[in-house]
Amino acid sequence: MQDTPKGSRLHIAIFGRRNAGKSSLINALTSQDIALVSDVPGTTTDPVYKAMEILPIGPVMIIDTAGIDDVGDLGALRVERTMQVLNKTDLAVVVIEPEQGVTDFEREIVKEIRKRGLPMAGVVNKIDLWPVTADVLSSWGSDLNLALLGISAKTGQGIEELKRVMIKLAPDDWEGPPLIGDLVSPGDTVVLVVPIDLAAPKGRLILPQVQTIRDLLDNDACAVVVKERELKEALEGLKNPPKLVVTDSQEFMKVGADTPSEVQLTSFSILLARHKGDLETLVAGAKAIESLQPGDKVLISEGCTHHRQADDIGKVKIPRWLRQSVGDELDFEWVSGGTFPPDIAKYKLIVHCGGCMLNRREMLYRLAMAREAGVPIVNYGLLIAHVHGILHRALAPFPLAQMILEE
Amino acid sequence: MQDTPKGSRLHIAIFGRRNAGKSSLINALTSQDIALVSDVPGTTTDPVYKAMEILPIGPVMIIDTAGIDDVGDLGALRVERTMQVLNKTDLAVVVIEPEQGVTDFEREIVKEIRKRGLPMAGVVNKIDLWPVTADVLSSWGSDLNLALLGISAKTGQGIEELKRVMIKLAPDDWEGPPLIGDLVSPGDTVVLVVPIDLAAPKGRLILPQVQTIRDLLDNDACAVVVKERELKEALEGLKNPPKLVVTDSQEFMKVGADTPSEVQLTSFSILLARHKGDLETLVAGAKAIESLQPGDKVLISEGCTHHRQADDIGKVKIPRWLRQSVGDELDFEWVSGGTFPPDIAKYKLIVHCGGCMLNRREMLYRLAMAREAGVPIVNYGLLIAHVHGILHRALAPFPLAQMILEE
Repeated sequence: MQDTPKGSRLHIAIFGRRNAGKSSLINALTSQDIALVSDVPGTTTDPVYKAMEILPIGPVMIIDTAGIDDVGDLGALRVERTMQVLNKTDLAVVVIEPEQGVTDFEREIVKEIRKRGLPMAGVVNKIDLWPVTADVLSSWGSDLNLALLGISAKTGQGIEELKRVMIKLAPDDWEGPPLIGDLVSPGDTVVLVVPIDLAAPKGRLILPQVQTIRDLLDNDACAVVVKERELKEALEGLKNPPKLVVTDSQEFMKVGADTPSEVQLTSFSILLARHKGDLETLVAGAKAIESLQPGDKVLISEGCTHHRQADDIGKVKIPRWLRQSVGDELDFEWVSGGTFPPDIAKYKLIVHCGGCMLNRREMLYRLAMAREAGVPIVNYGLLIAHVHGILHRALAPFPLAQMILEE
Repeated sequence: MQDTPKGSRLHIAIFGRRNAGKSSLINALTSQDIALVSDVPGTTTDPVYKAMEILPIGPVMIIDTAGIDDVGDLGALRVERTMQVLNKTDLAVVVIEPEQGVTDFEREIVKEIRKRGLPMAGVVNKIDLWPVTADVLSSWGSDLNLALLGISAKTGQGIEELKRVMIKLAPDDWEGPPLIGDLVSPGDTVVLVVPIDLAAPKGRLILPQVQTIRDLLDNDACAVVVKERELKEALEGLKNPPKLVVTDSQEFMKVGADTPSEVQLTSFSILLARHKGDLETLVAGAKAIESLQPGDKVLISEGCTHHRQADDIGKVKIPRWLRQSVGDELDFEWVSGGTFPPDIAKYKLIVHCGGCMLNRREMLYRLAMAREAGVPIVNYGLLIAHVHGILHRALAPFPLAQMILEE
């Protein structure tokens, strides 16, 4: 059985001072009908991600910020780590330790959470050891302007109520638009073109491909999965043309040629761009390729680190296509994993991977950062389609994005 | 990007006394062009599994037996843990520490490895600290009747040679027959029926389904993926009947009715049974259901622990079908994860899950254990097909297995 992907889990971050009992709270949530699926331990100052199931929210990712507050005060590293967590948080829980009560730590973190408009639950833990009167609870709550719930992670008191609060607070739009479900009707057939290259791990499909098949099944549609070489034969084997052909971006040229012009064609990257982020911003980024000048700085950003192939898309192919498009050299920089570099205003373009390992909140945050800095941002798939001159056709299922390209 | 599944990785176990430098050796192998993909830390006495890539073997699972030898001598727990590791080992590496040289530990472990006919490499580590003469190396080698290679995990001396030895020793039949690749020709279409029930994690497909799609693509075939409700429509949408329909076992009845009788039909469980183990043994186990008597002990064994649904197949459905088949009560016991209980001879039937999380070596070992104890063993999928009277049809692609059923 495979886990729900990280990017499809509601991200719940637990904040609190070192002795507030964050880990005990997570354990208490876990033991109470929440199955702990997996643990990815971080280094000392990295947060720990715990994949769990909370019904009826579904699969969640609990972010234990245990490591973050170990330095005692809001040092630079601590602030940076906290900001990184906040950039991917869908729902925050602030845990207050009753011996010291509300301190500057809680005030700061609540301010940061509120600044981002994130839903937030506040609890006072350890009420079995430090019984907290309703008056104190209410005065601390006023201090933070946040309703506080008294709990004991140790005895389990208040845990069920906290879960109900979390369920109520959980935003219902955190998942974004469907990957493909809203583009099909029951009974429709969609052809998925899945090239098998050296980068494809043995015995597996790439995550967005699996998610697309699943979304089609969830919407009573049928997925025809085929390599690019067998596409023509597969199309000819269908009595009626499919509703849509979705291809890996790297096979756009061949698939475009083999797909009859009356059949809509798009790519996994474009589906993911819409599902995870903001297709319109990325289409505007694709248009900006035309304005690149020789020597311009271009940032290539990948959401995860992966084993690089000789003909790696981020390292080799995209720089080659952009150079060909500009007709001269460009000044490339690369970054992967964590976050953007501190000063992105110096770039004339940011090229981002599809972000299959990032959650939507973090992808939207990166797009917002680029917008704020006035830097166009495009993703791999849109870039590939654009430099090969087929982005317009690939946007046919998305008329608004197509209009932005036409402007 | 998804990892290669655990079950599709060559399992390499590293054995040696506590101070032999097993972990350093694994790190040395890792830093030398081997990418560490993930780490699953075990408890103190559990071995640690490290998913890696060793070219040209491909994806491997290194089993670090660090915890096993911590008790100092071959105590009962240590022996049990060692045996459990050996049951899933495809290739063994014995690491000798040169200060003490060959001891009873090495003699015992080499004997056990040899008893199982497993390929084995032997190394003497730490030769940077304890230079070992060719004479000593050869005399220790004679003691174990095993060619020994002097290495230093610390300096890297001999690591490349060890990798060449490992690659040479790696058995080439460890993967077993293909999942489905040998049943299709290029251009064939196979319909995969994938029900979406509550047990299917959001955004995912079950591992054998993904592996089947991938194997079809690897063999230039086309996969039509559909839910059971849309199967009829999908079949009608094809100009020619598919080569094969593969269904989830739980939908055998409906899919059998909706698939024209001239189209071959089988299940993911049957494909997996052949790929991972021994289809003929399991078919003989299915036949044994007919001989069950009221009150007989039946063991239901699952290879992994998973979140149970209300109508769980192992806990609820299979006991119900078996009771209906016998027409009376049976005495069920359940086991999951690790291994079989010590005394399996008392059971009249073992019902095993498909074993998608087990590697082939371990599945073959479990089948061998059942055969030795004279206990018939069947898996979930074959049992379901048999109690519903459609096993004969589902075995059509496998004539030998079909003959065993007819006997």
